[in-house]
Amino acid sequence: MTGFKTPLKIAGGVALASLLLSLPALGQDAAPAEEAAATLSEGVSADVVFILNSFLMILGGILVFWMAAGFAMVEAGMVRTKNVSMQLLKNVSLFAVACLMYYLVGYNLMYPLGNWAMGSDETGGYLGAFGIAILEAVGITADGADDFAYAATSSDFFFQVMFCATTASIVSGTLAERIKLLPFLIFTVVLTALIYPIQASWKWGGGFLDSQFGFLDFAGSTVVHSVGGWAALAGVILLGARRGKYNADGSVNAMPGSSMPLATLGVFILWMGWYGFNGASQLAMGSVGDVADVGRIMANTNAGAVGGALAALILTAIIYKKVDLTFVLNGALAGLVAVTAEPLTPGLGTATLIGAVGGLIVVFSVPLLDRLKLDDVVGAIPVHLLAGIWGTIAVVFTNPDATLGGQLISIIIVGIFVFVVSFVVWFILKSIMGLRPTAEDEDLGLDKAEVGVEAYPEFK
Amino acid sequence: MTGFKTPLKIAGGVALASLLLSLPALGQDAAPAEEAAATLSEGVSADVVFILNSFLMILGGILVFWMAAGFAMVEAGMVRTKNVSMQLLKNVSLFAVACLMYYLVGYNLMYPLGNWAMGSDETGGYLGAFGIAILEAVGITADGADDFAYAATSSDFFFQVMFCATTASIVSGTLAERIKLLPFLIFTVVLTALIYPIQASWKWGGGFLDSQFGFLDFAGSTVVHSVGGWAALAGVILLGARRGKYNADGSVNAMPGSSMPLATLGVFILWMGWYGFNGASQLAMGSVGDVADVGRIMANTNAGAVGGALAALILTAIIYKKVDLTFVLNGALAGLVAVTAEPLTPGLGTATLIGAVGGLIVVFSVPLLDRLKLDDVVGAIPVHLLAGIWGTIAVVFTNPDATLGGQLISIIIVGIFVFVVSFVVWFILKSIMGLRPTAEDEDLGLDKAEVGVEAYPEFK
Amino acid sequence: MTGFKTPLKIAGGVALASLLLSLPALGQDAAPAEEAAATLSEGVSADVVFILNSFLMILGGILVFWMAAGFAMVEAGMVRTKNVSMQLLKNVSLFAVACLMYYLVGYNLMYPLGNWAMGSDETGGYLGAFGIAILEAVGITADGADDFAYAATSSDFFFQVMFCATTASIVSGTLAERIKLLPFLIFTVVLTALIYPIQASWKWGGGFLDSQFGFLDFAGSTVVHSVGGWAALAGVILLGARRGKYNADGSVNAMPGSSMPLATLGVFILWMGWYGFNGASQLAMGSVGDVADVGRIMANTNAGAVGGALAALILTAIIYKKVDLTFVLNGALAGLVAVTAEPLTPGLGTATLIGAVGGLIVVFSVPLLDRLKLDDVVGAIPVHLLAGIWGTIAVVFTNPDATLGGQLISIIIVGIFVFVVSFVVWFILKSIMGLRPTAEDEDLGLDKAEVGVEAYPEFK
Repeated sequence: MTGFKTPLKIAGGVALASLLLSLPALGQDAAPAEEAAATLSEGVSADVVFILNSFLMILGGILVFWMAAGFAMVEAGMVRTKNVSMQLLKNVSLFAVACLMYYLVGYNLMYPLGNWAMGSDETGGYLGAFGIAILEAVGITADGADDFAYAATSSDFFFQVMFCATTASIVSGTLAERIKLLPFLIFTVVLTALIYPIQASWKWGGGFLDSQFGFLDFAGSTVVHSVGGWAALAGVILLGARRGKYNADGSVNAMPGSSMPLATLGVFILWMGWYGFNGASQLAMGSVGDVADVGRIMANTNAGAVGGALAALILTAIIYKKVDLTFVLNGALAGLVAVTAEPLTPGLGTATLIGAVGGLIVVFSVPLLDRLKLDDVVGAIPVHLLAGIWGTIAVVFTNPDATLGGQLISIIIVGIFVFVVSFVVWFILKSIMGLRPTAEDEDLGLDKAEVGVEAYPEFK
Repeated sequence: MTGFKTPLKIAGGVALASLLLSLPALGQDAAPAEEAAATLSEGVSADVVFILNSFLMILGGILVFWMAAGFAMVEAGMVRTKNVSMQLLKNVSLFAVACLMYYLVGYNLMYPLGNWAMGSDETGGYLGAFGIAILEAVGITADGADDFAYAATSSDFFFQVMFCATTASIVSGTLAERIKLLPFLIFTVVLTALIYPIQASWKWGGGFLDSQFGFLDFAGSTVVHSVGGWAALAGVILLGARRGKYNADGSVNAMPGSSMPLATLGVFILWMGWYGFNGASQLAMGSVGDVADVGRIMANTNAGAVGGALAALILTAIIYKKVDLTFVLNGALAGLVAVTAEPLTPGLGTATLIGAVGGLIVVFSVPLLDRLKLDDVVGAIPVHLLAGIWGTIAVVFTNPDATLGGQLISIIIVGIFVFVVSFVVWFILKSIMGLRPTAEDEDLGLDKAEVGVEAYPEFK
Repeated sequence: MTGFKTPLKIAGGVALASLLLSLPALGQDAAPAEEAAATLSEGVSADVVFILNSFLMILGGILVFWMAAGFAMVEAGMVRTKNVSMQLLKNVSLFAVACLMYYLVGYNLMYPLGNWAMGSDETGGYLGAFGIAILEAVGITADGADDFAYAATSSDFFFQVMFCATTASIVSGTLAERIKLLPFLIFTVVLTALIYPIQASWKWGGGFLDSQFGFLDFAGSTVVHSVGGWAALAGVILLGARRGKYNADGSVNAMPGSSMPLATLGVFILWMGWYGFNGASQLAMGSVGDVADVGRIMANTNAGAVGGALAALILTAIIYKKVDLTFVLNGALAGLVAVTAEPLTPGLGTATLIGAVGGLIVVFSVPLLDRLKLDDVVGAIPVHLLAGIWGTIAVVFTNPDATLGGQLISIIIVGIFVFVVSFVVWFILKSIMGLRPTAEDEDLGLDKAEVGVEAYPEFK
């Protein structure tokens, strides 16, 4: 940075461009071609808009992909060593399953670029089309683009598939340490092929929550995070707690996570990935307003995390006299979730406060879940479900287009749909193959029982 | 995301632009200058093309750099604790050596921007020029650019140097735990200054594989990955296995990696970096077609990894009844390697299948290498060499410009060149200074013997 | 990469554009509107410049954010297990505090977009305005931008807030393992709200170091890195060494870091983040020259790290006969710090050398600090302060606009200001609440004493 920001040497060029463009009309001699070619107009050509929009989503897709690593690290750090390899395996596998199912079924179901096979009309359909995702041909021109005014289908698919995978990642943490691999992956198939895309189509596919209730959920506090949370909640109710977690007298045995550095790294990764999650959800960067908005979203997303972390820090220091790192980490995540429903319209201070409430929710609800004997290993339900609900409601504070009724009814409709369908799927899986390993396998650890690879074979 | 994707408010502007531009020709009054300046044409100016192309490679360079961290984490996770510091040291050091040598010798040798000092002509030369890399001056204009129709030389160098370093990173994993630092780094000097650039010039420098055999290798399944694999194979033959790995009766002693979280993190990092590796190899983002292609590449690259991971998951579950995490991780990497030779032309399903075959190759070839007593600590030969060969062949399935003959002959020529030269270099190093530490030092661990810093001094 | 780089199909288009634009002036028939709309001019419109500049800083902000994770991992790896959770907690917390204070006070104080509340005039003010940061409204047009010739305020804020946080991150490593959380965070408040922004305004806010001394510090060898180093130095003097670090006879007890993989990962993360730190400090990507310069900065930044790592590698091999990984890691960081003051004007070779001197400084000064009984746990003072000073001086070798006098006086003024104010703040904190935990708590480890969460509860 070379000192005070000086205006770029462009202003004069703009004036010159205007002058040159006006000359022929005034009947004067035009400038020579060489000069004309160097002039500047103020607009952005449609091609450049397409390129910048597409690129934003490509970058966003890379960053949201990275969140898969963040979930893996958070969860590997929060489980006990005997289940670390399994947790890593689940995270890699669920991501792969999610991408495959979203390609085969989910994308078209959720987001059919205007071509709904089912439903009343283009903006009000309840379910989308079944079919695999088809990208545009290689080397398209503007005429060959599916939606030239938007972006490349490839960039859209790449971005959206990562959101589907994120939803699945949320589930694995809650159910860690006592669910077998196979039923978990089968549930992931249903979640990513059907549950996520169908409810996402109601909002982002232009379905009834969008068109009839005016539901606003910018990057998915409800559509992604609460969905993962509801699916996890249904699972944990049927799965039960880890052996030994809750005593008959109601007391709770702490089962501390095996590696705080991994958990912290995971939170930093998620935080970074969230810039893509929220920022690229602007879906456009081809105008002055859009790029400035993307910048706002980045700053607000960060503010949400900051608010959540600081609120958890202060509250735990007051309540517990010690500052529990895991609360601060989950506070940051809850702040991120909370600001995700509307990262654009708040000012920085408001975004910080919205995040801070998310952090407070975590501190208060984690012990509450334990009292309900809902054994959520990483705190995904407080972070993604409860803070997601809060963030979705909070949209009404900063976005005048949102209504409290529209937000609440949408939260409830999505919640009932996801919870009920997930519960049924988990129940069927439990009936058919069982969800839990044997007690011996659980005590032994899933790494030895199912994976055959210990996470840290030399430590112990 | 604010609901159903609505056409940007640009379409009308394009029409207006067309109208305005046509007005003078029709002899009508032109619009005032202010309006004209705000109009939109559909094209992309040459300056913007240059900027976007350059930026794509800058971003790609950052992402491919990140792969160096991925290799370091994979290898640190797959070696035993007593050799972790050494493996980290090798990874940092080889990256630094590679960058220095590529700057001093390699870049100009490989990729001389059309100015070949040796060889028959500009597109068919066999060897490039010797000389250090020279970037364009500060603050160039279009006239000062080395290749204005392409991109900034600085961005090209930054991107290409990372490919050279990647090639070197592949080697270190195979030879881990029993090669001394000095001969390893000297080999890296030769690999990155000469071996990699010379063979890369045959393809990417416009040499005979490109011009005479029509060899297609989009981002380097052969040019990068198989090269690292061949160099590693030559090394492991001369180096031998780790002490105690193979018993006289032919049985194999498992030497499990010390940290599965690090190995998994490394794979996620590599996966992320691969978006830059493949995506930025489009080398252009200044048109509708190019950015849509970059998106295709991203989606296909991801599909390749997904296919590889799932194939390995399913196959190991069937064969071994347990799901070995390390196979799934290497399956994902093999899928990435396989799709690297042609990440653009396949559809998503085909890319998934190409990756899946890569994953199967890993599951079948890892035990095969053990039977040959080739002790490849991280599985780099299956992942980078064998899946790289597969991916290079698979180009013919989706790209009609590829011929099976051209692909095979190029694989063989590159393989023979790299393997023979590497073997000679390793042999000379073995003769002069020896490759292995003493048996005592190997048993003690290289961290204590050569590095003097234990990786985990408090654990044990 | 599809073979030899062929000129894009654009050159002809440019000529056509020139021709077409000149036609009306020549009185000939203009081309039809459709063709005209597809032509290419060479310029970049002001809107596109704004978009690209803003986007560069958004990307830069994401990458510099990532450095916070890098510091956390380096420090978690370099402290003993009993203090790892605390070190992670400090890193997350200081980042959150820094962002909040920079929003509330720092941004406006440092960088008021030309609206100085205090000081002689717009370019020579000594102190800036107090007030919270205000971003532009949602969906601005060019007219609504605070500085249309520069970039979106949101992007600028997002980028700058990360620099402020980086400064604070530097301090925590030096003081690790024996400072209580509360005084550390209170110091962070003062550092990020006042100390950092005030001195940064002297240079980057257009203050007197910039306007009167011609001080050049491109991305902050002095303004960021030395500032963190001075603040840490003041702290370590008042805080004292860890218990048991220095013996009465002057000998030093090694207290090796608990995890080399984490430390190495942290360095790779920082290295990656530095591309944003330096590259986006170009602050502009809307012209051929700017993007080529960004590419130069990327390549030079990498070269600096490479030089630092290799110099440390070679020097430690010579001096100690073993290659200490931690020196190589800190050598790379010192190379990065050194090249940060001027990553644009050097050639690749010079950048490598500037980084190499940084690496040598680390190897020589780490033992020196121990002789002074300054217990710098991670080596932040050699890396960020000493290499930062070196890098700031080295600007005069490659940038003719720099003067040795201007650089030295600026280093000294910033140094005195930051050291004295920091010392006073630390002294007040020491007097009021004490900086250190009790000896028992220090021996027990801060994780148990203050955090209540052990980093690795199962290892040991």
